[in-house]
Amino acid sequence: MSRRLEVFGVDGIGEIHAGDDLAALIVDAVEHGPDELVDGDVVVVTQKVVSKAENRLVAIDPDDPHAHRPLVAQESVRILRRRGDLVISETTHGFICANAGIDLSNVARGWAALLPEDSDRSARRIRDALVHRFGIRVGVVVSDTFGRPWRRGVTDVAIGSAGLRPVVDLRGTTDALGRELMVTEVAVADEIASAAELVMGKADGVPVAVVRGVPGDWLGEGSVVGDLVRGSEDDLFR
Amino acid sequence: MSRRLEVFGVDGIGEIHAGDDLAALIVDAVEHGPDELVDGDVVVVTQKVVSKAENRLVAIDPDDPHAHRPLVAQESVRILRRRGDLVISETTHGFICANAGIDLSNVARGWAALLPEDSDRSARRIRDALVHRFGIRVGVVVSDTFGRPWRRGVTDVAIGSAGLRPVVDLRGTTDALGRELMVTEVAVADEIASAAELVMGKADGVPVAVVRGVPGDWLGEGSVVGDLVRGSEDDLFR
Repeated sequence: MSRRLEVFGVDGIGEIHAGDDLAALIVDAVEHGPDELVDGDVVVVTQKVVSKAENRLVAIDPDDPHAHRPLVAQESVRILRRRGDLVISETTHGFICANAGIDLSNVARGWAALLPEDSDRSARRIRDALVHRFGIRVGVVVSDTFGRPWRRGVTDVAIGSAGLRPVVDLRGTTDALGRELMVTEVAVADEIASAAELVMGKADGVPVAVVRGVPGDWLGEGSVVGDLVRGSEDDLFR
Repeated sequence: MSRRLEVFGVDGIGEIHAGDDLAALIVDAVEHGPDELVDGDVVVVTQKVVSKAENRLVAIDPDDPHAHRPLVAQESVRILRRRGDLVISETTHGFICANAGIDLSNVARGWAALLPEDSDRSARRIRDALVHRFGIRVGVVVSDTFGRPWRRGVTDVAIGSAGLRPVVDLRGTTDALGRELMVTEVAVADEIASAAELVMGKADGVPVAVVRGVPGDWLGEGSVVGDLVRGSEDDLFR
């Protein structure tokens, strides 16, 4: 019998404001919702609400189409490409994405949302609150929407995690024919973020989802910045 | 009430051999399995079994660690990067991936599996068989495991599709605050492939999975090569 996964949004989170205790709001929403959390669940939280709760909001001139430019420069350690108003840069965390991940949509007019300062720490805080409240093992992923080279469209990836091994190493295991596997490290945190996006949508206002049914041994130590971000020495496209 | 997704593997497909009617085997496995297909399901099939069934297998010298090199050259239209034995190239389909997607794992020793010649056509064949047999709307995704720049670990992406809009355009819709969304095109076929990978594993021999619960309007016309592959004129990293 193969694995079975359930992915569902957590309703009732509501609009998030600067200073809100996001972890407590998620706990509340779970407690008042139809689904209890169970051991081994992975809770995916979008960057938008994390950035808002952590007050990573910056006032910008709503009539200046280039108002985000100095913010992009401030949040970047390295510019990779520039085309018109689009900048692909490396953020202070080590992420490579458009406009340093700065968000102008789903934010009130005249405001921009920066990425969380330390998105793994953001995930840890939420995880600690969930573990404390419910007394079960859960993983937490903070997700964001990134473009990629070579392929159209955006997908959600993990920018922070806690209680989950972001990359699961299958090295040394053998495939169905007994050969040693060659491609071995699966970025499960990114795949979980993508799966969650399928129930969140972009405009539906569902900022938290649960992915239920991943193998128990995927829960464990690790962080996105430590395990999922590729070092430049190791990268062929920087 | 937010969306709810179920993702599960289809058991009982068994080992695939050259010339097998993969679509018929999937139909059989569904008919003998515990889960019927329902209208709106997306069936994800890994490249490995598609390539085997379509006899995209090539004999190689099992003792030559560089035996795949001429195959990579043959399957590529453009080399982007080379480091040691690793080649990042653009395939004849337009995919950019390692070693032209040629697979040496999960294939018998002494054989390499090339990508399907036309992976969207492969998806269409399977979809046509499923629609013909069950009389419902289903989408089909052919998935493969690609690395990416900047991030460690591999994820599954779509290399072929049928009956599914690979990129869903949210342009013109507004976000929860009534602002027009800026990032609008979501590569749902890739997110569906990633979600399916979470139940397939690499070594478990579950080559087919079902993703149930995507919005009905995601089913429709489109192809991965036509809609998801970014043209080089439009790409900052080629």
